[in-house]
Amino acid sequence: MDHSVWSVPAREVAPIAHGGDLGGLRMAYPDAPEPWLDLSTGINPVPYRVPPVEASAWTRLPEAAEVWALREAAAAAYGAPDAAHVVPAPGTQILIETLPRLLAPSRVAVLGPTYAEHAAAWARAGHAVDEVATVAGLRDAQVAVIVDPNNPDGRTLPRAERRALAGALRARGGLLVADEAFADLEPVESLCPHVSAPDVAPGLVVLRSFGKTYGLAGLRLGFAIADPATAARIAAALGPWAVSGPALAIGRAALSDAAWRAQAARDRAADAARLDRMIARAGGRIVGGTSLFRTADFPDGPDLYRRLAASGIAVRRFTERPERLRFGLPAGKGAWCRLSRVLR
Amino acid sequence: MDHSVWSVPAREVAPIAHGGDLGGLRMAYPDAPEPWLDLSTGINPVPYRVPPVEASAWTRLPEAAEVWALREAAAAAYGAPDAAHVVPAPGTQILIETLPRLLAPSRVAVLGPTYAEHAAAWARAGHAVDEVATVAGLRDAQVAVIVDPNNPDGRTLPRAERRALAGALRARGGLLVADEAFADLEPVESLCPHVSAPDVAPGLVVLRSFGKTYGLAGLRLGFAIADPATAARIAAALGPWAVSGPALAIGRAALSDAAWRAQAARDRAADAARLDRMIARAGGRIVGGTSLFRTADFPDGPDLYRRLAASGIAVRRFTERPERLRFGLPAGKGAWCRLSRVLR
Repeated sequence: MDHSVWSVPAREVAPIAHGGDLGGLRMAYPDAPEPWLDLSTGINPVPYRVPPVEASAWTRLPEAAEVWALREAAAAAYGAPDAAHVVPAPGTQILIETLPRLLAPSRVAVLGPTYAEHAAAWARAGHAVDEVATVAGLRDAQVAVIVDPNNPDGRTLPRAERRALAGALRARGGLLVADEAFADLEPVESLCPHVSAPDVAPGLVVLRSFGKTYGLAGLRLGFAIADPATAARIAAALGPWAVSGPALAIGRAALSDAAWRAQAARDRAADAARLDRMIARAGGRIVGGTSLFRTADFPDGPDLYRRLAASGIAVRRFTERPERLRFGLPAGKGAWCRLSRVLR
Repeated sequence: MDHSVWSVPAREVAPIAHGGDLGGLRMAYPDAPEPWLDLSTGINPVPYRVPPVEASAWTRLPEAAEVWALREAAAAAYGAPDAAHVVPAPGTQILIETLPRLLAPSRVAVLGPTYAEHAAAWARAGHAVDEVATVAGLRDAQVAVIVDPNNPDGRTLPRAERRALAGALRARGGLLVADEAFADLEPVESLCPHVSAPDVAPGLVVLRSFGKTYGLAGLRLGFAIADPATAARIAAALGPWAVSGPALAIGRAALSDAAWRAQAARDRAADAARLDRMIARAGGRIVGGTSLFRTADFPDGPDLYRRLAASGIAVRRFTERPERLRFGLPAGKGAWCRLSRVLR
């Protein structure tokens, strides 16, 4: 582009493959039985029941009081100090895109392999990005990104180690971005309660995802948790009315429902254990995962992927690791049976 | 903030007052009759009827094919060359915030007075921003922003003049941002068909709003129209899945319904004429407006504002021009009568 006012990113970033889009699979496997069983994401297949949406949620601009009520519900659900620490957004993805554009050009290290959009977004915004394999590799960066629990392998670091990392980055004027997209249903300890600790703030931004846990990915709702000054800065970059009226109402109801979340954690953990047994029977070696997805290496990964697809079952594969497949959870007897017939 | 990786904006920008949030008015006028009649926005009070939303629109990640279908419907509705020229976003506001962060630091001129978030967003992103009163004042800028038809006074420039402005900016590597948020129901000529013209691209980005025309502001849907390379750049900054599943489905249905839009244009124009007569009877001098709002100067602006509020009617006022009030359209006999009782 020859246009002088457009800033030139450090490098162009190729589009990233994601689960959840069956269009390409349908074309590649036209004879697969419909409907497809989509296990290519880590989205809860048993969604929170969408409560009736008032007409005004569609027609009116979302009011500040409604946004604040959602922030309060999210603060309580995630263990953030209070609502001033919470930034609601139309999905976590847009926070992943926005955050890099709020920082001066920095050396960024992403603990990988992980969700590829993090490194891509920092690179698109002109930062120098490295993927590193160990926590030690993060210590020279100005901005460190960790996904905990990690996607796709479920790796999690002790909270003390994550908190120390935030403190170390803060001490040199840096930032830890901790993506806790898959933390809700896991027995992991969140960094959310620590975002305003004097030795940490403003060196820590935690990301939380709504759609995965509640099975409502189409709603588009996610959160950044940070000290109030940083939260205000991120919120200003999204502008007023970033979150839709229906997402404000449904998000508030769901995040206030601790009993539903506790039951979902038990049910999905049981599903994950069942899926692990099925994978093991099929010769897979479980690499890790969370209650919402399981990742395994197979002696015949590419072949198994094709057999699943020919049966109308979508799972996630990884270009750089052909032996590896990630399975979302089936829901309902029919779906479990369908998967079981291929994994034998 | 003492944090070195956070970039420091050129200046902090104070929050901007908007219509559509009754919380403050309810506190200031606790004795006003409920429900309030909210005429403080330019949102169509007769909304497009929300079609039934399939469960999968809430639960699944929006698929690329659905996004493309919305882009095609928007291209046809707005007269853009094709779907590759269309970027859907969760509301126009987030485009207003995002665009300034994609450009190198520039001299920005906003043709004012107008919607205040434009100047604020460019300032927050670190650009040097001036508000200018004439088109001639835009010619020295690298980035020019016009709202056409303008909010709140309805000012519109001939298309030839707007197109020439885009060409002039393009010729020196600059950009024209043309916010056509209120163009849908007006007899104005859009710049959308011209975004890829060789003497214009990539020097023109047009913004279109969905929620105002269709009375669905809570849905959060808006569009940037630009040449395909620029459109791809803006889309990348929003990430995949920026628009919710319900917004994709409802937006596509509504934008494909040309008959509804034509009828809405006729009906709202009649409403606007009726509102003008009512305003004139109350001693107001119409400054301008669109079919969705009317702006007028009153000898007793502040007093009329208070009398309206005491009667539970919210209109928009302007700190810098106390004589000026902006009225959205009432809908339904009761609302018209309520307004008529105060405007006499």
